[in-house]
Amino acid sequence: MGLALGELAQRIGGQLQGDPDCRVTTVATLQEAGEGELSFLANPRYRKYLHGTRASAVILSAEHAGDCPTATITVTNPYAAWARAARLLAPPAGSRQGVHPGATIGSNCSIDATAWIGPQCIIEDDVTIAAGVQLQGSCFIGRGSRIGDETRLGPQVTVCYASVIGARAVIHPGVVIGGDGFGLANEDGHWIKVPQLGRVCIGDDVEIGANTTIDRGALGDTLVEDGVKLDNQVHIAHNVRIGRHTVVAGCTGISGSTDIGSHCRIGGGVGILGHLEIADHVTVTAMSLVTKSIPGPGMYSSGMPVQEHTAWNRNVGSFRELGELLKKLRRSGKHAGKSD
Amino acid sequence: MGLALGELAQRIGGQLQGDPDCRVTTVATLQEAGEGELSFLANPRYRKYLHGTRASAVILSAEHAGDCPTATITVTNPYAAWARAARLLAPPAGSRQGVHPGATIGSNCSIDATAWIGPQCIIEDDVTIAAGVQLQGSCFIGRGSRIGDETRLGPQVTVCYASVIGARAVIHPGVVIGGDGFGLANEDGHWIKVPQLGRVCIGDDVEIGANTTIDRGALGDTLVEDGVKLDNQVHIAHNVRIGRHTVVAGCTGISGSTDIGSHCRIGGGVGILGHLEIADHVTVTAMSLVTKSIPGPGMYSSGMPVQEHTAWNRNVGSFRELGELLKKLRRSGKHAGKSD
Amino acid sequence: MGLALGELAQRIGGQLQGDPDCRVTTVATLQEAGEGELSFLANPRYRKYLHGTRASAVILSAEHAGDCPTATITVTNPYAAWARAARLLAPPAGSRQGVHPGATIGSNCSIDATAWIGPQCIIEDDVTIAAGVQLQGSCFIGRGSRIGDETRLGPQVTVCYASVIGARAVIHPGVVIGGDGFGLANEDGHWIKVPQLGRVCIGDDVEIGANTTIDRGALGDTLVEDGVKLDNQVHIAHNVRIGRHTVVAGCTGISGSTDIGSHCRIGGGVGILGHLEIADHVTVTAMSLVTKSIPGPGMYSSGMPVQEHTAWNRNVGSFRELGELLKKLRRSGKHAGKSD
Repeated sequence: MGLALGELAQRIGGQLQGDPDCRVTTVATLQEAGEGELSFLANPRYRKYLHGTRASAVILSAEHAGDCPTATITVTNPYAAWARAARLLAPPAGSRQGVHPGATIGSNCSIDATAWIGPQCIIEDDVTIAAGVQLQGSCFIGRGSRIGDETRLGPQVTVCYASVIGARAVIHPGVVIGGDGFGLANEDGHWIKVPQLGRVCIGDDVEIGANTTIDRGALGDTLVEDGVKLDNQVHIAHNVRIGRHTVVAGCTGISGSTDIGSHCRIGGGVGILGHLEIADHVTVTAMSLVTKSIPGPGMYSSGMPVQEHTAWNRNVGSFRELGELLKKLRRSGKHAGKSD
Repeated sequence: MGLALGELAQRIGGQLQGDPDCRVTTVATLQEAGEGELSFLANPRYRKYLHGTRASAVILSAEHAGDCPTATITVTNPYAAWARAARLLAPPAGSRQGVHPGATIGSNCSIDATAWIGPQCIIEDDVTIAAGVQLQGSCFIGRGSRIGDETRLGPQVTVCYASVIGARAVIHPGVVIGGDGFGLANEDGHWIKVPQLGRVCIGDDVEIGANTTIDRGALGDTLVEDGVKLDNQVHIAHNVRIGRHTVVAGCTGISGSTDIGSHCRIGGGVGILGHLEIADHVTVTAMSLVTKSIPGPGMYSSGMPVQEHTAWNRNVGSFRELGELLKKLRRSGKHAGKSD
Repeated sequence: MGLALGELAQRIGGQLQGDPDCRVTTVATLQEAGEGELSFLANPRYRKYLHGTRASAVILSAEHAGDCPTATITVTNPYAAWARAARLLAPPAGSRQGVHPGATIGSNCSIDATAWIGPQCIIEDDVTIAAGVQLQGSCFIGRGSRIGDETRLGPQVTVCYASVIGARAVIHPGVVIGGDGFGLANEDGHWIKVPQLGRVCIGDDVEIGANTTIDRGALGDTLVEDGVKLDNQVHIAHNVRIGRHTVVAGCTGISGSTDIGSHCRIGGGVGILGHLEIADHVTVTAMSLVTKSIPGPGMYSSGMPVQEHTAWNRNVGSFRELGELLKKLRRSGKHAGKSD
């Protein structure tokens, strides 16, 4: 069991300093790892634990290798190398095959023999489930939906009708894909529901966190492209597009018809208004509000950090009269200028 | 199949310019529509696509009709007319009737013969389900709850005991109605649970977005009145009242015992503190925080839009010393005044 | 039925002024209570209803007893006393025992005979369910998880593999415990999933609101200690620790590896960045953003209250040029000073 360090270093593309035949069987933090355990150093915050570690080997960058009391595997990207190593030493739960007798399967479905449909799942008519798909239990897959190879759905996931999900997606519990968008027309003070007739289309290698919701398009589709990663409790409205390899952290809400580029990093708790265009390679930091399109790459912020409450209140008070005060001060500044 | 434009114009109350016998069978955007397809122009943002559209007919206001290369149906409210037309051309999935054998039904329930109880649903004792109600699957309806005519519940919806839901509601997947409110009494640093003994009462024609939660009252009820529309991931605390025809956009949280008037528009990501009174016809824009009652109609804001990160940081720095600075500047302004 | 006031006062530790043999059978607000009903006054906001109440008895503090037209039970902490009294007069729904035939039970599980596994529940292999546990229905309990005495799970709760939940927890519908943390390593612009190998461990007497999510640790565990109370739609990321008796209000998100002390009060809609340390007895008010560790107790804020929209816009405009303006004003202030 486990892996010899020599083989491990080779498989993750690193340089081993140490005994290639020494075996590691599992993974742990620098502080907690012991004999036979592999650890890593990626975040400089944890460098202080390096010299005291009792791990059998540590994945790290060359600059820190000298401080490590044990075998090292040096790499250029320790966190990515760690991800690969951890997957080798702690593989995900094995796949199952077949249809649990407690599942409810509609007519005219195509379910690959290597897929697993867990207990209490409901598969409506005309659904296509590809090879190796894993539905853990109590999932609902609406009529006409398609789920690609090796995609995994946690419990209590809802996929509404006509949704398309690509290959190798990981969809955590409680996610809702394809609920109606919030489309309402006002008539004499009452709201009329606008039928939501589009779909949700999700690319390959997407991950979606627990209780996140992605609404179907009104006309046309809501698009989540390849490699996108969404954290928990994210809200994606109708007809949004999220470009390839963009990440969206928890509790963020993106309003309807907004188009987000590729390789963006949208921080936690962010709000983005509707009908905007956000360029590729844009970073928006935590709890910011985006009210206009962002035409080029860069980092954008409006999250206000806490202060001690009394100081905060005083500053808020000043803020609320800021427009007036600056007008006065500009005037007095001019006068002062004159007196020079 | 489809509808003749003459009949369509009549049913949505518009003026047809074009061949009344021409038929449309489906709907699409201005850019994508082709022969036999109906489109619309409501948001001026999309006017640029009008002159090039290949739709068979377009719903729009009279002022834009001249720019349209094809048949037009002019109306005073294109978005509302579109909602009606889309419903005629793309009717919602048909209703089903009966109780799926995989559902679990308690004792003393009254379930109308025209209702549908989908697979894996759990109906506890003493529940009343009215005519035409549709429970799509895996719904939980707690004891003593009542659901009104034609109301539709998506998969994985939970309705806790003694809840009352009106007619024609649309409740999307993952919604939780009637969970306990967050009622806690502090005693010597520990928190004691305060029993939550009220109900949730929801009026007619309400729509509730995916994964939204509405807590039951502590004493007395949480009220969501007729025609209210809640988006995804909204949080309504115990004993809140939401007045008729108010809309609440995604990720908004409303704290306990707050009373919100009718015809309000509460933007996405808003927070409203507890025990407040918000008047009718109040608009609160995205990511605002309401800390005091709002006695009259109007638009209220505190969402701060993003800036480029470095500029933002500089401004935040200034903000944090704002109280102090303005004090000094006021003083120097006075001195400057004296020197005039 | 009901309780005599004399016995009630004794059981909640209060002083009765009134007939000890008078019986109350239920509870209501000051405005709505009538004969045979108990009410209370804790929030001064409701003092105005005291003199007109028709309750048979009121729990309150000594200072208000003189204004009450009916029997009083005076206590030092009326809200806590009320919680106890309400529990006596309106006890929670009785417990059930056994396993519903519609549940799916894995192998090698230990399910106490006094526990209740409701319909459509899925219990994977190697799960331990202690005495008196109540799973209401459609819950998913992943392999190897353990649930302590008397803990109650509402419908549609997901507990992922290897999670540990203590005694007397109350977990509301739609909660997800143990989903993967948002661990991603960037390699050449693509994101690689970092395996999430830790657990979620939850102490005793914890309450978790509807649709809240708590992610499993990456390495090591996510910890929610004894007596913690989480409201609805809270997001707790991987490897967070929440100290004993801390409360977290709705829609708050706490990022990875942040350590929150005991007896904190984290207001609704708050965001807390990752890898921070928050001391004991810290209060963070609504919609604040915490970007740095907080080393000592106190109240911290950055939630900006709404203004009328036009005034807000003017102030935001001033804010955005604040850095520049203050620089100029400082200079002109100096000049003004010189001219004195």
